[in-house]
Amino acid sequence: MEFFQVVTLPEARKKLAECWPSMRREAAVLDLTEALGRELAEDVISREEVPGFSRATVDGFAVRSGDTFGAGEASPVTLRLKGEVVTGRPAEVAVGHREAVAISTGGMLPAGADAVIMLEHTEELPGGFLNVLRPVAPGENVMGRGEDVGQGEVILGAGHRLRPQDIGVLAALGYNRIRVWEPWRVGIMTTGNEIVPPEARPGPGQVRDINSYTLYAQVQALGGRPRLYGIVPDDLRLLGERFSQALEENNVVLLSGGSSVGTRDLTVQLLAAWGSERILFHGVSIRPGKPTLAAFIEGKMVFGLPGHPVSAMVSFDLLVGPLLRYGRYKEPAEEPVVEAVLSRNVSSDAGRDDYVRVRLVDGGGDGLLAVPIVGKSGLISTMVKADGVVIIPAGKEGLEAGNRVEVRLFD
Amino acid sequence: MEFFQVVTLPEARKKLAECWPSMRREAAVLDLTEALGRELAEDVISREEVPGFSRATVDGFAVRSGDTFGAGEASPVTLRLKGEVVTGRPAEVAVGHREAVAISTGGMLPAGADAVIMLEHTEELPGGFLNVLRPVAPGENVMGRGEDVGQGEVILGAGHRLRPQDIGVLAALGYNRIRVWEPWRVGIMTTGNEIVPPEARPGPGQVRDINSYTLYAQVQALGGRPRLYGIVPDDLRLLGERFSQALEENNVVLLSGGSSVGTRDLTVQLLAAWGSERILFHGVSIRPGKPTLAAFIEGKMVFGLPGHPVSAMVSFDLLVGPLLRYGRYKEPAEEPVVEAVLSRNVSSDAGRDDYVRVRLVDGGGDGLLAVPIVGKSGLISTMVKADGVVIIPAGKEGLEAGNRVEVRLFD
Repeated sequence: MEFFQVVTLPEARKKLAECWPSMRREAAVLDLTEALGRELAEDVISREEVPGFSRATVDGFAVRSGDTFGAGEASPVTLRLKGEVVTGRPAEVAVGHREAVAISTGGMLPAGADAVIMLEHTEELPGGFLNVLRPVAPGENVMGRGEDVGQGEVILGAGHRLRPQDIGVLAALGYNRIRVWEPWRVGIMTTGNEIVPPEARPGPGQVRDINSYTLYAQVQALGGRPRLYGIVPDDLRLLGERFSQALEENNVVLLSGGSSVGTRDLTVQLLAAWGSERILFHGVSIRPGKPTLAAFIEGKMVFGLPGHPVSAMVSFDLLVGPLLRYGRYKEPAEEPVVEAVLSRNVSSDAGRDDYVRVRLVDGGGDGLLAVPIVGKSGLISTMVKADGVVIIPAGKEGLEAGNRVEVRLFD
Repeated sequence: MEFFQVVTLPEARKKLAECWPSMRREAAVLDLTEALGRELAEDVISREEVPGFSRATVDGFAVRSGDTFGAGEASPVTLRLKGEVVTGRPAEVAVGHREAVAISTGGMLPAGADAVIMLEHTEELPGGFLNVLRPVAPGENVMGRGEDVGQGEVILGAGHRLRPQDIGVLAALGYNRIRVWEPWRVGIMTTGNEIVPPEARPGPGQVRDINSYTLYAQVQALGGRPRLYGIVPDDLRLLGERFSQALEENNVVLLSGGSSVGTRDLTVQLLAAWGSERILFHGVSIRPGKPTLAAFIEGKMVFGLPGHPVSAMVSFDLLVGPLLRYGRYKEPAEEPVVEAVLSRNVSSDAGRDDYVRVRLVDGGGDGLLAVPIVGKSGLISTMVKADGVVIIPAGKEGLEAGNRVEVRLFD
């Protein structure tokens, strides 16, 4: 029997995170409407100031702020009205001493003015005059030239994953096309003589492939580009051929099934053929997900995931997903959680991290209740019933009913 | 000046949530690999049991559990070895009294057996015998027929949004194609004479369109199908034409700019032409985002979002996004957060909910520090610098440095 060398989750992550930076992929130039979620392949430097001129942020009148000092409801300051700024056009009139120019939100601040008094703090008088009922400070209700983005600023760094607001600032800077990295390519294969595709009717002893589809969707959800390599029978030669093709065509290869220690442990044999020094670990002290294997081969990351569907999903989430999405593992404090109260006792082995599936229900006045879902890690239905997981860290022997717990929600 | 009737966020949401159920869209039949994130257009009922036969969940020997009672390291029970189950094939041998059949993980439990003893709790003897060193309970290391999914069970209800595990259970049930709703179609238009597209070089008084691109990406991120209707000048007739087209072709129309009370308030005039009773509210007591307007016209939802980019994003996130994604608004307790310590005092008006943008930094031993980002709601760069928001609810006049706060992360 193969030696099963179990590492802790932090140890496994450390090894993977060390290899990840040497992973390589292509860049592409995309329209802004296609770039959401992609990582920048280069720094984005502001080529100009945003906005390119000072603008009103309210509807009102452009004034010299000094003229309004001391203005009040009982002691209005009277200014001469001198035309208006047409939004979207150059400001053609200048504001002189004791003068005001009408302006709308977004209008260009005319020369001479340094502030905008809001419409509701003025009253128009007959004969082209205006009463100002409140003072304005210099710069008040004005967005200054370059106040949003200065020229020559690195506004987004290479590697940054584009969020909606980042797409917005790129639009503001005139980048209608942008150079980003292609998604990580992830090849997925399932091994096992008993596995048939979803469209087949399983015969006696056969079951349908689940892992190819859960893993495909997990990769999709994180912005990767999954590709299925199908079901491979337990035959080292066939497996080797298909694996070589997947390795050639992808950055990451996920094998599922065949990684537990036992008679079918073909994944280990397969990877040993590439040199056993390429194997980073075999076994992680998590439950479910323990029989997970990882290797780094020719600049590609290879994972042998457990055959049980829940184990494969948990192992993917903990080890593969964060790298695909962020290129790193987040600290627990960075991971968003909801708080809930555990509905019943849950026991756990002290030697490993336990990932307990829970369903959230309304606990009435007590907030949310986390109800543990019992079931073997082969039961995909337990994941379907769950809203998230509660982690019982190694070193803890369980949690009690009534304990406050942090739930990591599924999407 | 138009009357500005401000509602609270819960009031605004209540009105929108009442209209939402009458929104209609088409269904489509998709492959499993295309269905992630889509909502089921019908209940999914299990047509068969999963698994279709009892299976071993470990490598070992199928036995009659009763034969192993009392077995121990010092008092092994000896069984006769009687062939093996080939995984993926029907189990051809039956297990009789004091017999054992070799079986691998996933193999079909042979007739007569009711449990599997793990390989490591046995020792093989010469002459075709086996010592069992531990007792097994009935059903131990076996996944029973139908244990994952029973026949005739509603495994996923209509309207459920498909997660990776749901895709997995569909594969297990043989649904390789599935009927789902088409994404919500969202038309996006920007109004304003001063706005030019990203590819243009702005002249004096002009700025580039930001909101079309942030909103497009926000809709994408939530699984909606956005479509741009471009920049419309401040002209009621042109706006009316373009709006009618967008309303015809979409479920939701987002207008941005032109919804603040003032000289350019064309959105209100535009919607008034459809009947002012269709306007659900005009103004929400949130900051930023206050000048938001919503209407329900011919079974379509219309939003007049603020022109300031940050305001438009926040308003979309609070009012539009949850409906697109979940068809409802979540309770605050359901929204995942990370905990942080506020780095400095932040003041707030007691009359409205304040959405304070914050950046998260490592606070050393004290966990995460939330650093408020100062800046006008016209500055998209403040969103780019932020990692999430802290909410100061109406009724609170601010938060103090050192307060523990809950941060809602951007993606």
